[in-house]
Amino acid sequence: MTNEWYYEQFENHTRLGMRVRRRLVTEQSEFQKIELFEAERYGRVLALDGVYQTSEAEEYFYHEMLVHPAMTSAPRIRRALVIGGGDGGTAREVLKHPEVEQCVMVEIDARVVEACKAHLPAIGTAWDDPRLDLRIGDGIAFVKEADTEPFDVIFLDGSDPIGPSTGLYDEAFYRGCTRVLAPHGVFALQSESPFLMRGIFLRIQETLRRVFGRVDPYFGPAPIYGCGIWSWTCASRGIDPTAIVDARAERIETQSRYYNRDVHRGAFAVPNDLRR
Amino acid sequence: MTNEWYYEQFENHTRLGMRVRRRLVTEQSEFQKIELFEAERYGRVLALDGVYQTSEAEEYFYHEMLVHPAMTSAPRIRRALVIGGGDGGTAREVLKHPEVEQCVMVEIDARVVEACKAHLPAIGTAWDDPRLDLRIGDGIAFVKEADTEPFDVIFLDGSDPIGPSTGLYDEAFYRGCTRVLAPHGVFALQSESPFLMRGIFLRIQETLRRVFGRVDPYFGPAPIYGCGIWSWTCASRGIDPTAIVDARAERIETQSRYYNRDVHRGAFAVPNDLRR
Repeated sequence: MTNEWYYEQFENHTRLGMRVRRRLVTEQSEFQKIELFEAERYGRVLALDGVYQTSEAEEYFYHEMLVHPAMTSAPRIRRALVIGGGDGGTAREVLKHPEVEQCVMVEIDARVVEACKAHLPAIGTAWDDPRLDLRIGDGIAFVKEADTEPFDVIFLDGSDPIGPSTGLYDEAFYRGCTRVLAPHGVFALQSESPFLMRGIFLRIQETLRRVFGRVDPYFGPAPIYGCGIWSWTCASRGIDPTAIVDARAERIETQSRYYNRDVHRGAFAVPNDLRR
Repeated sequence: MTNEWYYEQFENHTRLGMRVRRRLVTEQSEFQKIELFEAERYGRVLALDGVYQTSEAEEYFYHEMLVHPAMTSAPRIRRALVIGGGDGGTAREVLKHPEVEQCVMVEIDARVVEACKAHLPAIGTAWDDPRLDLRIGDGIAFVKEADTEPFDVIFLDGSDPIGPSTGLYDEAFYRGCTRVLAPHGVFALQSESPFLMRGIFLRIQETLRRVFGRVDPYFGPAPIYGCGIWSWTCASRGIDPTAIVDARAERIETQSRYYNRDVHRGAFAVPNDLRR
């Protein structure tokens, strides 16, 4: 056992440390510092600019919860768009649904994808799926300018609102999403911790409400984010994200570790202090 | 801002660090090492034998979720027993219910109670409630030997199964609880993390099933336990813990920060990989 610890420091007050078995990647890309290492308990871990993004041991909570509530409740799921998600976990969960004919993924940092392909094969298991159309580029520009058929579902899998992800929290970006989203479409995003980042969580909800007719946050675990409770949000013109298409959910439940229909419905319970 | 960090190290692999503003108590009692400090983000924090127990900033998740599912679904809640819970948060939540006529609390370590009374007044707000009968003593001996009227609800608020809490995870202790529990009574306990302490979580469930007719785990956040998902469990002869008495829950919702009826029902959704 090594004596090296990796620490994420959250603001000035909290640190989550993991014992490192082996360093795999330490590199500065055009956009951010990329670190990959093997941890004693969490398997392989990706950190960007010093912030944990994903780990083999617990990524299923985050990826299943970002993807399946929307994928089991959207009216159609033929065409999917993933913005960010460079580790490949979100695209993997999307592509578990056989109804998906095409999944376009727009990730800004080619080096993140390359590092994850090389070192996180257990997370990105769908890189070779012929339905995946991976494009290296700016998701903000894509939703603003792309000449594309509309998408039935859009997933935003970005990092915290610092560095390359800052613009992913703006009203302009959400309006771009509505431009490429089908009228019956559902937009699902990670929306930070309602406990440790309460201000950011609330700002995301307000900004979404200015753009979408219906906005439903939901909640669940994300162990390495170190805050006890994480949130994701479904936004649409009026789709009820708890109206589950049982046939889709039943199929997913045979492959999921956290997600099932009870978990899906339960996740939409809003903590008392977040109700208006 | 000081540069002192307090770390809980979990097994050999993970550390959760908090920046310390000020140390309040560092003392070895007859049973354990008691530490209290003021943290930069979490307010005042209690650690026992190096393990975080509670903090002003997020204790409401844990205490509300330990107490209110049982208190809003048990047929009667006139007499309550709390085992452990030396910070006073569990007794405080129990005593928010006006139906409670007596709450007996059995805590083994007088020094924990004294330190928390002195330094965590925001958590233990019910020490002077005339319905509270605080006894310093061994909870295991109490449930085995006490000559007492039966209790309608029993709460086990103990620390991890090391040190003075080890015996609180044994079948013999649970059998003791049934001895002092009314036939219609409900026993609610913290049952560790189903993710980071999966083995312990499963063992608790199995042991409870040997003793009680009905055992329902439920799940929620506990930020400073650093594992993304915590569990509690209701055990009884056959009471459905999701059959909520609305009048009681409505009253509690006006005072709670996390708990409400949607959260209550949603918490009983079992993660897919924990279903049999």
